[in-house]
Amino acid sequence: MQNFILHNPDYQNLIAEKMKGNHFMNFIGFKSSLVQPGLVEGNLTILPEHKQQIGFLHGGVIATLADLVGGFAAYTLVKPSQAVVTAEMKVAYLNPGIGQTAFAKGYVIKAGHKLHFTESEIWVINEGKEMLVAKGYATFAVIDLL
Amino acid sequence: MQNFILHNPDYQNLIAEKMKGNHFMNFIGFKSSLVQPGLVEGNLTILPEHKQQIGFLHGGVIATLADLVGGFAAYTLVKPSQAVVTAEMKVAYLNPGIGQTAFAKGYVIKAGHKLHFTESEIWVINEGKEMLVAKGYATFAVIDLL
Amino acid sequence: MQNFILHNPDYQNLIAEKMKGNHFMNFIGFKSSLVQPGLVEGNLTILPEHKQQIGFLHGGVIATLADLVGGFAAYTLVKPSQAVVTAEMKVAYLNPGIGQTAFAKGYVIKAGHKLHFTESEIWVINEGKEMLVAKGYATFAVIDLL
Amino acid sequence: MQNFILHNPDYQNLIAEKMKGNHFMNFIGFKSSLVQPGLVEGNLTILPEHKQQIGFLHGGVIATLADLVGGFAAYTLVKPSQAVVTAEMKVAYLNPGIGQTAFAKGYVIKAGHKLHFTESEIWVINEGKEMLVAKGYATFAVIDLL
Repeated sequence: MQNFILHNPDYQNLIAEKMKGNHFMNFIGFKSSLVQPGLVEGNLTILPEHKQQIGFLHGGVIATLADLVGGFAAYTLVKPSQAVVTAEMKVAYLNPGIGQTAFAKGYVIKAGHKLHFTESEIWVINEGKEMLVAKGYATFAVIDLL
Repeated sequence: MQNFILHNPDYQNLIAEKMKGNHFMNFIGFKSSLVQPGLVEGNLTILPEHKQQIGFLHGGVIATLADLVGGFAAYTLVKPSQAVVTAEMKVAYLNPGIGQTAFAKGYVIKAGHKLHFTESEIWVINEGKEMLVAKGYATFAVIDLL
Repeated sequence: MQNFILHNPDYQNLIAEKMKGNHFMNFIGFKSSLVQPGLVEGNLTILPEHKQQIGFLHGGVIATLADLVGGFAAYTLVKPSQAVVTAEMKVAYLNPGIGQTAFAKGYVIKAGHKLHFTESEIWVINEGKEMLVAKGYATFAVIDLL
Repeated sequence: MQNFILHNPDYQNLIAEKMKGNHFMNFIGFKSSLVQPGLVEGNLTILPEHKQQIGFLHGGVIATLADLVGGFAAYTLVKPSQAVVTAEMKVAYLNPGIGQTAFAKGYVIKAGHKLHFTESEIWVINEGKEMLVAKGYATFAVIDLL
């Protein structure tokens, strides 16, 4: 993995604050467990409302987790005067999501001046057994605040 | 647009039933307004829980709407003995989503034996003014039930 | 389609010059037939070297055409002091490319300060009959020269 | 990496034969250096005709390499009675390609009954120094011959 330059030593507090205000993240119940430069992880307890009609974890929930961990991973690397917005995201749905907990991990593969490229993995744990259910590939635009 | 072959004359009831059982769709509050062969439209009243920290419609909600309208559009075209699952989806985030209502439209651009390719548009209406906030591009795999 | 603001009245000459110097474009034999603000079209006479092992137009040629027409369409809209580079591109392969000529069309769907989003269509003409063989969806970053 | 089931013990000869007949691959000059179950690597000597107007490796060449190594990696895992075709591919362009040689590596991340998901890396070596210039993310459809 790239050795990232950290422009904001206070990134932990920044991300914590942004997550607190991220309504949709809190609405679905995702909780972060690790925030490091260019890396964010977290978990979701899978409830009935997260499923589609067959009982699998909904593709929209998976895409949301991919956007969250990729986006916050990108956010750790920008200056205090900057933010990131999702430019585009692709999600590959590898396996059906059947289980009790989802684990999501996002990491930056290239941090540029204007764009941060990220990947993410969405795992579902079913009675202790882990399955990779999706991978996300997203591009975030770095924007200057003010 | 392609002139589609309809394999399931009862597609309207099938989609209505699938939507009724789609927990995450109902959890976020998306409601379908039009279901035709290869085309699905619908609306979402934007509530505080659908937003991210800056107040824009969350990218995960947008991806969910894209998956829903694209997926159900693909579903209208399969045989009664088949279903569709999302193989992969890309979303291009064109503009920030600021407004009171989201409108989503999904349509099939190629219906194959194994794969249905779709596109979708996500619009946000702000005090009567429409803005295209995202486009979705998704591939759905046709699966044989049983 | 968006009504684009034209920042470079001399875009026709600029694109002609860039195409002249685009070695890989000329190596495969693609020729432009139309350049307008946010829109580029062109043709390729399909030769044996453009095919894969079964005789279809190679996916790499199709991706190249998508990159060329999308990229030059984006290029028409930037300032004389700017250029565009491909940030990412997705290509959906809808149908096998069997025929004598390929026609490619790229158009901008959103021109932003930092990013231009484009779509493209790749058609193959077989004994007078047109078939849409692929669609491209690409994001171009606007860069400041000097 | 997934431990793949090998359905075709003669995959080495099959891939060698397919590569021999792949006109566009040979036209640009890509040469394979490693073929294993779910993994293909190879090299391209970068010539003037592979570049765009600024002298970087052309995005279309990069997309072609991604398609080749991903596609042949997927091809190693199907039955003798099957083939693979590219359903869709996304390429993230991380860094400009400046150098004398390109190295491409494709690997399967999920081999399914109907779809094989792959990733690929495109590196450029400039006077001995390696740079990751792009990653590819592609979906291949498994088709039954006859």
